[in-house]
Amino acid sequence: MALLVLKFGGTSVADIDKIRNAARHVKREIDAGNRCAVVVSAMAGQTNQLIAWVEDAARGRAANVDGHRENGESQGYDACEYDAVVSSGEQVTAGLLALVLQSLGVKARSWQGWQIPLNTDPVHSKARITGIQGDALRGQVLDGEVAVVAGFQGIAPDGRIATLGRGGSDTSAVALAAALSADRCDIYTDVDGVYTTDPRIVPQAQRMNRISYEEMLEMASQGAKVLQTRSVELAMQRSVPVLVRSSFDDADQDASADLAELGTLVCEEDEIVEQKVVSGIAYAPDEAKVTLIKVADKPGVAAGVFGPLAEANINVDMIVQNVSEDGRYTDLTFTVQSADLDRALDVLRSKKDEIGYGDLDGSTNVAKVSAIGVGMRSHAGVAAQMFHALSEKGINIQAISTSEIKISILIDAAYAELAVRTLHTLFGLDSR
Amino acid sequence: MALLVLKFGGTSVADIDKIRNAARHVKREIDAGNRCAVVVSAMAGQTNQLIAWVEDAARGRAANVDGHRENGESQGYDACEYDAVVSSGEQVTAGLLALVLQSLGVKARSWQGWQIPLNTDPVHSKARITGIQGDALRGQVLDGEVAVVAGFQGIAPDGRIATLGRGGSDTSAVALAAALSADRCDIYTDVDGVYTTDPRIVPQAQRMNRISYEEMLEMASQGAKVLQTRSVELAMQRSVPVLVRSSFDDADQDASADLAELGTLVCEEDEIVEQKVVSGIAYAPDEAKVTLIKVADKPGVAAGVFGPLAEANINVDMIVQNVSEDGRYTDLTFTVQSADLDRALDVLRSKKDEIGYGDLDGSTNVAKVSAIGVGMRSHAGVAAQMFHALSEKGINIQAISTSEIKISILIDAAYAELAVRTLHTLFGLDSR
Repeated sequence: MALLVLKFGGTSVADIDKIRNAARHVKREIDAGNRCAVVVSAMAGQTNQLIAWVEDAARGRAANVDGHRENGESQGYDACEYDAVVSSGEQVTAGLLALVLQSLGVKARSWQGWQIPLNTDPVHSKARITGIQGDALRGQVLDGEVAVVAGFQGIAPDGRIATLGRGGSDTSAVALAAALSADRCDIYTDVDGVYTTDPRIVPQAQRMNRISYEEMLEMASQGAKVLQTRSVELAMQRSVPVLVRSSFDDADQDASADLAELGTLVCEEDEIVEQKVVSGIAYAPDEAKVTLIKVADKPGVAAGVFGPLAEANINVDMIVQNVSEDGRYTDLTFTVQSADLDRALDVLRSKKDEIGYGDLDGSTNVAKVSAIGVGMRSHAGVAAQMFHALSEKGINIQAISTSEIKISILIDAAYAELAVRTLHTLFGLDSR
Repeated sequence: MALLVLKFGGTSVADIDKIRNAARHVKREIDAGNRCAVVVSAMAGQTNQLIAWVEDAARGRAANVDGHRENGESQGYDACEYDAVVSSGEQVTAGLLALVLQSLGVKARSWQGWQIPLNTDPVHSKARITGIQGDALRGQVLDGEVAVVAGFQGIAPDGRIATLGRGGSDTSAVALAAALSADRCDIYTDVDGVYTTDPRIVPQAQRMNRISYEEMLEMASQGAKVLQTRSVELAMQRSVPVLVRSSFDDADQDASADLAELGTLVCEEDEIVEQKVVSGIAYAPDEAKVTLIKVADKPGVAAGVFGPLAEANINVDMIVQNVSEDGRYTDLTFTVQSADLDRALDVLRSKKDEIGYGDLDGSTNVAKVSAIGVGMRSHAGVAAQMFHALSEKGINIQAISTSEIKISILIDAAYAELAVRTLHTLFGLDSR
């Protein structure tokens, strides 16, 4: 007997038929003698409908600045009421899945965040989990009753519902798995695992059997949007093995099948036997490059540039500063999300006098490609191999950034797919 | 300053524009210096959508009779999960109305049943309120913050959400008004009050300024479906004045206007100054008549007939037993809802031997018309007046039943509208 937490995302519970399919996955585990808690998202589309209502309801608020002020006011509405409305989506799915399970003869009961309780900090609409008092729930689960938990929500210190922010259901699931000391957290989603790169670009991409938490964090933040970053951080911190698998696989297949056949297991580095040097190639097309030309090469300039950008809530990714030729001026290049480019340029123009630069240049015509692998730690020369292969294809590298387990390059967007294919082959990731 | 409970039904909060209109009613009261708690239903249509999902989710349940069994199983699904799903409709409206109020500069906070808490008995999906611990809510309201309460729901002793059954939001509102010792409970709905009879039948029907609880109970159970019967019983028991008014009236009209101009006040009998003998004429077209011919005239026969009907959950209304001519046999006539007629006949046919009757006859071709008025208590001859007027129009009375404040007659359905118009004129209810 294993204690499992299963999580189904919005597309996996989009209608009653899909909820029925999810229930068959749960029933298979129960029939195999396992004990289950299930975390569900809202039915796909419901959350957007609820948010649209909230935004419509709060319309006209700006004209009433003397009104009631609360947390989250900056979004233009009271985050506490946003939470009360939007959390209802997961509440509905949890009840419906419990009903379907009962219709299949499986004992089940729905749990909302406040019923467990799953406690959060007071930051409504972007709350973080502070603790789960899971004893009652665990007792029921060990007793053979499936606990169907509304994801994405908990109860804040003010006694009101708090949501965890978009994608928070993954985090709910991992946190619950940790609190219950579950043997594994299975994330059922609309893909069947984590691939060595985007299969739409490289048809030879392979599903990984296993990936370490660290690599998954780099893959996820690079655009392999399978698992929410916070959930991976939490899984790493609490050593929760997470299996990413498809909810659209045959729900009746043997529960005891080899995990490697079912999806990708995100786990500790030392549980991965045949570790490659590079595990995967990530690709972020939505990058934009900003270059400040002829910036004074002196202390305080970086703060002058990046401080105002941070205040404007613009995330800066790769930063490259060339060595100054004359010791007086240099060029400063960095990347932001494409969607933030115009705002970033506006901020920098408004600060031109304080920063002091010659010219400002922005371009969305770039892509970031990264090679990721914990094996890099013990293998020198990975970067050299990479640059050599790309130069052979005539691909010019505009910027480079590295971490212990990742090498990222910024290149002309036109060459992005060629670069991904080249690196995928170079590091032996193509399937035979 | 008055402490008011305002209740808005589903059609009055059907979309964000209607919610905004409801908010303007609330703001008008706040601007006039009053303190408000507001009870809301789900947006019109939402509850039906949620129930449809529940029924779809529970489909196939009948094939799994060995499965999990709970309260409410007789409906084919677990009432506890039904409650978890369906209660989300009111939760959404409460949050949205709070947001709209804030956008108008009015301090507001939503409250779900479990947050107040509003306690219920354990009968999920048809729960009754057992108590309201309204101190925290009352404190906030007296402090000037509008409490927007999700109607139709509370928390059961098992710590789970319980709904009060269809129309339960009226009961939520009256119970909250009683718990807060509110000065009045205003029910905003899609009609502007209670009329002396159905204005679609009698164009001269008038809106009543006031009606006693007792009369309202008779009117409501007779088909004037403005207020849920349980809410009127509760208002009577706890002496809560209830004002029925239209949510589509001009929301900005003077809050201190004469109540008589705003709608119909349901109140104690002695607060009604100019009491007429008959206050209103009610009309129930959906009646069916059942006659058992040649039934033995001996003790126990009535129990033999009505026991099995009660077991089959069929409500019997008017019962007439003729005096037996020969002391041995008699005829027994009673009415049921039209929708129940076939089931009632089936039950009686299956019990023919036990009951012992000559023949069985059923007809939906009848209507019930009632004259209602607390003034009848002190006025003899109302029934005689009524029968005389009807006989002058050639209307044959098939059955009669009376209470202290009501006389009901059963007639051929073809004459129902003529009978209503005749009685409305007879008792001086036509507007000039």
